[in-house]
Amino acid sequence: MKPIIGITMGDAAGIGSEIIVKALALKEIYECCQPLVIGDGNVMKIAARISETNLKINPILEVSKAKFGYGIIDVLDQKNIDLQNLRMGFTSEMTGKASVDYIKKAVNLSMEGIIHAICTAPISKEALNKAGYSYSGHTELLAHLTKTKNYAMMLVHGSLRVVHVTTHISLKEACNRIKAGRIVRVIELTDNALREWGIEKPRIAVASLNPHSGEGGLFGLEEKEEIEPAVKETRRMGILAEGPFPADTVYAKARGGAFDAVVAMYHDQGHIPIKILGLEWIGKEWVKVGGINVTIGLPIIRTSVDHGTALIKAGKGKANPQSMIEAIKFAARLAGNSGKKD
Amino acid sequence: MKPIIGITMGDAAGIGSEIIVKALALKEIYECCQPLVIGDGNVMKIAARISETNLKINPILEVSKAKFGYGIIDVLDQKNIDLQNLRMGFTSEMTGKASVDYIKKAVNLSMEGIIHAICTAPISKEALNKAGYSYSGHTELLAHLTKTKNYAMMLVHGSLRVVHVTTHISLKEACNRIKAGRIVRVIELTDNALREWGIEKPRIAVASLNPHSGEGGLFGLEEKEEIEPAVKETRRMGILAEGPFPADTVYAKARGGAFDAVVAMYHDQGHIPIKILGLEWIGKEWVKVGGINVTIGLPIIRTSVDHGTALIKAGKGKANPQSMIEAIKFAARLAGNSGKKD
Repeated sequence: MKPIIGITMGDAAGIGSEIIVKALALKEIYECCQPLVIGDGNVMKIAARISETNLKINPILEVSKAKFGYGIIDVLDQKNIDLQNLRMGFTSEMTGKASVDYIKKAVNLSMEGIIHAICTAPISKEALNKAGYSYSGHTELLAHLTKTKNYAMMLVHGSLRVVHVTTHISLKEACNRIKAGRIVRVIELTDNALREWGIEKPRIAVASLNPHSGEGGLFGLEEKEEIEPAVKETRRMGILAEGPFPADTVYAKARGGAFDAVVAMYHDQGHIPIKILGLEWIGKEWVKVGGINVTIGLPIIRTSVDHGTALIKAGKGKANPQSMIEAIKFAARLAGNSGKKD
Repeated sequence: MKPIIGITMGDAAGIGSEIIVKALALKEIYECCQPLVIGDGNVMKIAARISETNLKINPILEVSKAKFGYGIIDVLDQKNIDLQNLRMGFTSEMTGKASVDYIKKAVNLSMEGIIHAICTAPISKEALNKAGYSYSGHTELLAHLTKTKNYAMMLVHGSLRVVHVTTHISLKEACNRIKAGRIVRVIELTDNALREWGIEKPRIAVASLNPHSGEGGLFGLEEKEEIEPAVKETRRMGILAEGPFPADTVYAKARGGAFDAVVAMYHDQGHIPIKILGLEWIGKEWVKVGGINVTIGLPIIRTSVDHGTALIKAGKGKANPQSMIEAIKFAARLAGNSGKKD
C-alpha cells in the first residue's frame, strides 16, 4: 500500500490551500502516495476554484472515509475557518489557532500510525502569536507535540542536504550557542537520518562559524574550541564526519558529491546556498521555488515547503506549488524507506 | 589605446604564476588590454613550461620596454625569488616578502598613471606573517598603501555583485561592528562604484544580519537599530537603497535582476552565494572556478581572483585559470569605463 501523507493546510489566509490543490492536480503525486489534506473544507473548495482545476473536494470527518483517488481531494475537515471572517492575505487569531489545530491533528494521526508522514504548508508566526502561541516556527511546535528534545532542521535541494546547529535566534546568540555538545548531537541526528534514508555510511561535512575557518584562531576560536572537538568525538563514534571546513566553499563541494550532508552553524549559513540554488526571480516574481525542509530527530516523518505564507500572493491563483510538490514526494519516499508504508 | 593592466604574480609558491600564464595564452585578453605581469621572471618561465604553452617570457626592468604582443608575456622582473630556495606548495619569508613587493610596485605604477588597473593573483597570509607583515589580506594592504580609509570588498559573479560591511574578523566581532555609520559608508561606496562603472541609478539591496530580518526584533535588534536607519539615511542622500531584506532570499532576487548589488553584513554571507554559483566540484577537484573580487573605494582600480594560493596544486600544471581570466577582463572593462584608458 502507498503511504498516507497528511498534508496540513497551514495558515488559511496564505497560499497553503492553493499550493496543495495545485500539487494534488498532478497524477504523479497519487502514484507515489495517498494524500490526505488536514485543513478546512470550505477554504480548500475556494482554493480549488481559484487554481482553475477540475478537482473536487471531499470533506470527511474520519480518515477511513478517504477515497484516495486522483481527481477528488480528501480533506479531513476541521471546520475551523469561518469564511465570513477570513480575509486572504491577512492572518488572524482564527487562522493562527486553526493552523495549530491541523498540526496537532496530523501529529496525533501520525503517532497512532494512521498516517505515515506529515507534509506541512506554511504557517504564520504572527498569527500564532495572535492566537496566544509562542513557538518560533513549525519545527519547535512539532518538537513540543512529540516531546522531542534532540531535533534539527534539514534543508534539501537536489543532492545538497544541510542540517542546522542553530536556527531561529539572533546571529549573536547563535555564536554563543556554538557548543561541542550541540554540534555532536546534530552530527549524530544527521548520521541517523541519512542511514534511515538508505545511505549506508553518510559522509558529513561540518561547516565553520568564522570566515576562513577562523584563520588559525585569528578570526575566532570556535573552530578550535568547539567544532574540531565535536568532529573528533563523532569520528570516535564511527561517524564519517569531517571539518570544520570554510563555510564559503563547503556547500559547493557537497553539492558536487563530496559529502552527503553539511552541518551548518546558523540559519542563514544553511539557507543561503539552498535558496540561491532553489529560487529564481524573473521580472517581479519568483518563477522557480524549489527546496524542501525536513525535521530530523522526530519520532514521525515530517517534510515541509521551504517558503512562507506569501500573504501578498494569497487568494490570487498565482502561487507556485513547486516546493509543495517536492515536499510531498520526499515525505512519500521517506515513509517508504522507513518501512511504514503498510 | 588599450588599458595597461598590471598583474601581480602573488605568492611564488602558489598557483599565481601558472594561472597568469594560462590566462595570457588567450588572444581575447590581448584584445581588451595590454597585460603586464609584475613578478619574478624566472618563476614565470617555469610557469610557462609547466602550463605547456608556447608562450615566451620577456623579463623587463621598465614598463617602457614592454612589447604588449600576444605570444610574449612581459614581466616587470622584480628578481626577488631565489629558485634554489623556492619549493612549490611551501610558502616562506622569501615568497611572502616578494608578494608584497609586487603589490607595492603595482600600486606605485598605478598611482603614477603608468598602468591603469591592477589585477592580483593570490597571496598567502601565512607567508605575509613569516615576512613580518600583519595584513589580514590583499584588501587591507592595498588600503594601507593607498592611504584609503573607506573601502570595501566586492565579489562579482555574472550579474550578482556583493559588497561587504565586514570581512576578516570573527563572526561575533562582525555582529558587534554592524553599525549604521559603516553601513552608510558601504552603501555610498557601492553606489559610487556602480555609477563609475556606468550604471546610472544603481539599485542597492541591503541584507539583514539576523534570520528572517530579525523577525520584528525577536531574533535580534540590529535591523531596527542599525540597518534600517542606515538605509533611510542613504535614501535621503538620493541613493536607491532598499532593505534590510532577509539574507536567505535577497541574493537570489538580485541575481534575477531586482538589484544591481547587495550589501552583505559579513564575510560568509556574501561569499556563500557567490561561491556556490561560481564553483563546481566534480570527482575530487574544482572544475569550475569563477567569480572575482574587486576592491571599491581605492583611488586605483583593483580586481582579483576569488580564490587562494591553492598550495596543494602548485607547480603541477593543473590549476584552473577561469577566475584570473575574468578578473583581468573585468579590470580592463573598469579601466575603460573610468576613462583612464589613454
